[in-house]
Amino acid sequence: MINNKVVLYIAMSLDGYIARKDGSVDWLDDVEGDESDNGYGKFYDSIGTVVMGRLTYDEVLSLTDVFPYADKPCYVYSRSKQTEDPFVVFTHEPLENLIPRLKDTSKGDIWLVGGGQLVQAFLEKRLLDEIYVAIIPKVLGEGIRLFPKGTVPDTFKLLKIERMGQIVALSYKV
Amino acid sequence: MINNKVVLYIAMSLDGYIARKDGSVDWLDDVEGDESDNGYGKFYDSIGTVVMGRLTYDEVLSLTDVFPYADKPCYVYSRSKQTEDPFVVFTHEPLENLIPRLKDTSKGDIWLVGGGQLVQAFLEKRLLDEIYVAIIPKVLGEGIRLFPKGTVPDTFKLLKIERMGQIVALSYKV
Repeated sequence: MINNKVVLYIAMSLDGYIARKDGSVDWLDDVEGDESDNGYGKFYDSIGTVVMGRLTYDEVLSLTDVFPYADKPCYVYSRSKQTEDPFVVFTHEPLENLIPRLKDTSKGDIWLVGGGQLVQAFLEKRLLDEIYVAIIPKVLGEGIRLFPKGTVPDTFKLLKIERMGQIVALSYKV
Repeated sequence: MINNKVVLYIAMSLDGYIARKDGSVDWLDDVEGDESDNGYGKFYDSIGTVVMGRLTYDEVLSLTDVFPYADKPCYVYSRSKQTEDPFVVFTHEPLENLIPRLKDTSKGDIWLVGGGQLVQAFLEKRLLDEIYVAIIPKVLGEGIRLFPKGTVPDTFKLLKIERMGQIVALSYKV
């Protein structure tokens, strides 16, 4: 499929964090969403390829016994040599090579799962098409920021607002 | 009036800033809201007393020839000796004294205008009842954060969502 979108789909605390300092997302557990899956199933069906950073990958592994993206091609960005994992491709190919290629060849949109460093790199290189941010009504006080200091200034276009229980999901075109 | 609410009513960039490093809010100028005043008039009518920090006061003065809150009692928190201003009371009375007194005596709710330091103090001392945050679809990359690092962790309750053009206004009960 040609011209898939690159979508950042992520949860953020009201004070801008996507994870605690150690990468954990336990603070998402007790958040009241809607009755179903907060639209995740529909979103995931639209995805052809999954991309994430190494810390995010580690956090995903720590949260589950079964790798949740095993049914889609999954690229994990990492500078160091990696362990074996049949479900992922570890890479440090320049983003500006990999992502345009995926946009042309992926069987659906490309999901940037996180984390902070990779988001920063996508924004700098203008490789992100849409941001879907689920705002969690919590203040964490510290952690890994979605938009760390030094993020390239930009103006987005508001596409959609959804309320799911205590969560507000905002979609922006980058 | 008894038991007025203390409301933080403020605009924040998507990356969590309420002003640039120097306190300026020029980045709010070109944001597309709704046709009218984005509900500001109605909000302002509900307010009995205005409270802000010294940097915010300076920024307000720099933006306008006529002090916009001249029709309401206005307290400006400042540690240093102040210039004369017939429209404001400069104070460094402990918040935990002034705010409860205002809640009992103000002719309407108390508006915490900003900035970051004062918000932090209100949250620490649990003096804030509601947060109304207008999310601006911009990333600034640096500035004064609404919830700086070290803000006391907390969970809020989502009260309301409004869309005004490109702005999303979220109301939370603290």
